[in-house]
Amino acid sequence: MTAEGEGIRLRRTKSVTRAEEIQKQEQQLRRIQPDKPCHRPRDSLFSWSSGFTNFAGLVNWAFLLLTMGGVRLLLENLIKYGIRVDPHQWLVVLTGSREGDPDHPSLYLASYAVVPISLCLLLEKGLAGEKIAANIGSIAHVVNLALLVTLPMVVIYIKPTGFSLLGASGVCFLYSVLFLKLWSYVQVNLWCRTARASHKSTLRRMSVSLSKLSNGSANHNDPIEDHLVYYPDNLNVKDITYFILAPTLCYELNFPRTDRIRKRFLLKRLLEVIVLLQLILCLFQQWIIPSVKNSLIPFSNMNLMLATERLLKLSIPNHLVWLTFFYLSFHSFLNMMGEILHFADRNFYCDWWNAANIDVFWRTWNMPVHKWCVRHLYIPMVEQGYSKTTASVTVFFISAFFHEYLVSVPLRTFKVWAFLGMMSQLPLSHLCRSVEKNLGPRWGNMIVWASLILGQPLCIMMYYHDYVITHFGESLLESYASI
Amino acid sequence: MTAEGEGIRLRRTKSVTRAEEIQKQEQQLRRIQPDKPCHRPRDSLFSWSSGFTNFAGLVNWAFLLLTMGGVRLLLENLIKYGIRVDPHQWLVVLTGSREGDPDHPSLYLASYAVVPISLCLLLEKGLAGEKIAANIGSIAHVVNLALLVTLPMVVIYIKPTGFSLLGASGVCFLYSVLFLKLWSYVQVNLWCRTARASHKSTLRRMSVSLSKLSNGSANHNDPIEDHLVYYPDNLNVKDITYFILAPTLCYELNFPRTDRIRKRFLLKRLLEVIVLLQLILCLFQQWIIPSVKNSLIPFSNMNLMLATERLLKLSIPNHLVWLTFFYLSFHSFLNMMGEILHFADRNFYCDWWNAANIDVFWRTWNMPVHKWCVRHLYIPMVEQGYSKTTASVTVFFISAFFHEYLVSVPLRTFKVWAFLGMMSQLPLSHLCRSVEKNLGPRWGNMIVWASLILGQPLCIMMYYHDYVITHFGESLLESYASI
Repeated sequence: MTAEGEGIRLRRTKSVTRAEEIQKQEQQLRRIQPDKPCHRPRDSLFSWSSGFTNFAGLVNWAFLLLTMGGVRLLLENLIKYGIRVDPHQWLVVLTGSREGDPDHPSLYLASYAVVPISLCLLLEKGLAGEKIAANIGSIAHVVNLALLVTLPMVVIYIKPTGFSLLGASGVCFLYSVLFLKLWSYVQVNLWCRTARASHKSTLRRMSVSLSKLSNGSANHNDPIEDHLVYYPDNLNVKDITYFILAPTLCYELNFPRTDRIRKRFLLKRLLEVIVLLQLILCLFQQWIIPSVKNSLIPFSNMNLMLATERLLKLSIPNHLVWLTFFYLSFHSFLNMMGEILHFADRNFYCDWWNAANIDVFWRTWNMPVHKWCVRHLYIPMVEQGYSKTTASVTVFFISAFFHEYLVSVPLRTFKVWAFLGMMSQLPLSHLCRSVEKNLGPRWGNMIVWASLILGQPLCIMMYYHDYVITHFGESLLESYASI
Repeated sequence: MTAEGEGIRLRRTKSVTRAEEIQKQEQQLRRIQPDKPCHRPRDSLFSWSSGFTNFAGLVNWAFLLLTMGGVRLLLENLIKYGIRVDPHQWLVVLTGSREGDPDHPSLYLASYAVVPISLCLLLEKGLAGEKIAANIGSIAHVVNLALLVTLPMVVIYIKPTGFSLLGASGVCFLYSVLFLKLWSYVQVNLWCRTARASHKSTLRRMSVSLSKLSNGSANHNDPIEDHLVYYPDNLNVKDITYFILAPTLCYELNFPRTDRIRKRFLLKRLLEVIVLLQLILCLFQQWIIPSVKNSLIPFSNMNLMLATERLLKLSIPNHLVWLTFFYLSFHSFLNMMGEILHFADRNFYCDWWNAANIDVFWRTWNMPVHKWCVRHLYIPMVEQGYSKTTASVTVFFISAFFHEYLVSVPLRTFKVWAFLGMMSQLPLSHLCRSVEKNLGPRWGNMIVWASLILGQPLCIMMYYHDYVITHFGESLLESYASI
């Protein structure tokens, strides 16, 4: 409708002045007639020439319609399936073992994590005291970390019956986090050791003189120095425990700290953790499990229309769970941990919801991992002379590996759907960039959201499908189809 | 979370300057350490204390989710009901007669409308020429208009089998519009006659001299006078035909005109009319009719949860049809008519989508009717000494009458659901006002939208329910329930 840019009013201003004058007078004349004229030339608001752009009410409309759709789906679900929520099962699920199994292998496996952590600290102590040679220490660290990552894989594969899905996922998640944390711990201590070796105490002296200079009072014992921890004073149990618990993956010797615990803030976060955890479990039991089960037949028979309908139907509860999970873990839980531990840097996420490109989304939604990748993988690689592209690709592949690890190991189906999903981000990023360039950031953002909303349930359905076929065979599928 | 207003950063600024100084130096010292610190104190974006407010991406999210929900519903509908669209039936429906009936009573009835229009013009001519006495003329006009409104009611009641629902609705709509138009025509001509009687030609002379004055050129024959039409020159067939076709309900002697027909604009509007009409018919056949039929059983048995689910399910296609209908009639169709007729005032609707109160919605969504009500009912009543409240209430009741008329007559079920629906706008308006005052215009707007989205399908289901019970009896309901 751009051609209508020259609307009724606009054309009027362009016309000849004489004719305009006449028209103006005619209007004046018209207005004093006894027929009480009530019309005047103007455009409809939807015409471009009207210049009207206030459609704020439509945003309210959209959110209202969404809420109503949600309520309807909830009612439909209740009518169809009844109440599926079963608090007893939550306990079973949360302890991480299968129903009826008194053993808690995931709890044992989680507790075992103390061993590699202690080993790591001992190795560092030995390296700092020069009791262990640098190359032997490095090899020991690598072995320790490699064992850390492979342990859950092996245990879950050997003793598959003992683990519930959530228990296995929890253990894998814990060990992944520990791997990243310990890598950071080892690397930072290596930096400190290298610095100490090259100009042993110059740094410490320099910093002291600097603080004295800027303070201007060199007479009394400077209080600043007392607060900071210097290598190797950091190598103790208290420090490593704090780091393991702290809501970050990047180790440093002196974390920024808050002055006090805000009790109201902490209470709110704690409540959020409790309530949202229940909500996620409810959504899972009531909505996702029936939807996934229903999707099995169309996906297996590859009836495209039915499968698409199922995918769209699954995508909504899945997306809700993901959003709740995001808020729960990145805002509520990490802020709670931060508040308890006086940890001051709460930059756990940036504004990924405005991301106009999938790259931006990956850089902003999970700041602990993103910071770790930049600090411990990307920058070291670039500093060692690799090109930026190589560094980016490496970061990307390690990220893809951990995604696959966190999904495949608990499900015990070594498929590559999650890995392929990660790989699909590359063409998606190109698509985003061209869309953003041609249609503006709004459409780029739309594509990011679409990939989030649709990509995940697609992967879930593929995994579930393969999981069922691998572990229960085609027979189950046939019995489903016959119903 | 307002208590957290004093966030990490804020509290920092409040603390003692000495401590702050120390902290600052500590930060400087920390930054030059070999452990490459990457943390600094800051709040999470969702914390109020972060001051972050850019959630623009969530608007895109909402619209995307809505679109996806729509696509899913479409697929679900196709899977459940197959293709219900039947172009043959459209022809039957659009001609307004029942299937298999060669008679077209609605077309005859529509054509008959020429008679009251001609009568009205003849009466006006007689009154202008003082061949008919003023009081007799008034009575004749009232009788003519009253007959105009009652005619479809009587004919549809006498010959119910000949009319399809759409045919009957179309005729009722046409006659309602004609009633309002002729009322305006008669009243405006009365104003002109009264003005002529009181100061016969003074006005004309005054206006001429005014135009000459402002023009400044009294020598040549003024071209302005030639353009305007004065009473009683307007009383001719061409003028009344233009008014009947023009996209307005308010008569005046000199409508504002455009200079030319914008061909591209006209073509676009024409295409919109054709495409959207098809879309509405498709939505009706494919979505609304099955949904309404499905809702019959729960509504009759008053199963609250099931009925609510049905209502919410019906509300979405119904709302889509209403929105499409609004755009089709108020933007596409009326602009098309306006363009063809060189009619310059395209103010057919205001920005009702931003309305924070249901009153504002009623004043802005249908400008032709709103203008008519103000010009021909409200102002005349206030001028005759009635209070503004009385005038408002009268406008409201006449509006309620016509809503009831347009629904009850075609359905031949003289229930009061539409009338009650209109009446419910009064408490709703109070609710809106208090919500707007306490929670802001956004929530008022939400309530307006909610009433639009939910109110209409509620009325439709009630009417359909009563329609089925009245015309097919309880037997049908029982046969439905037994399925």
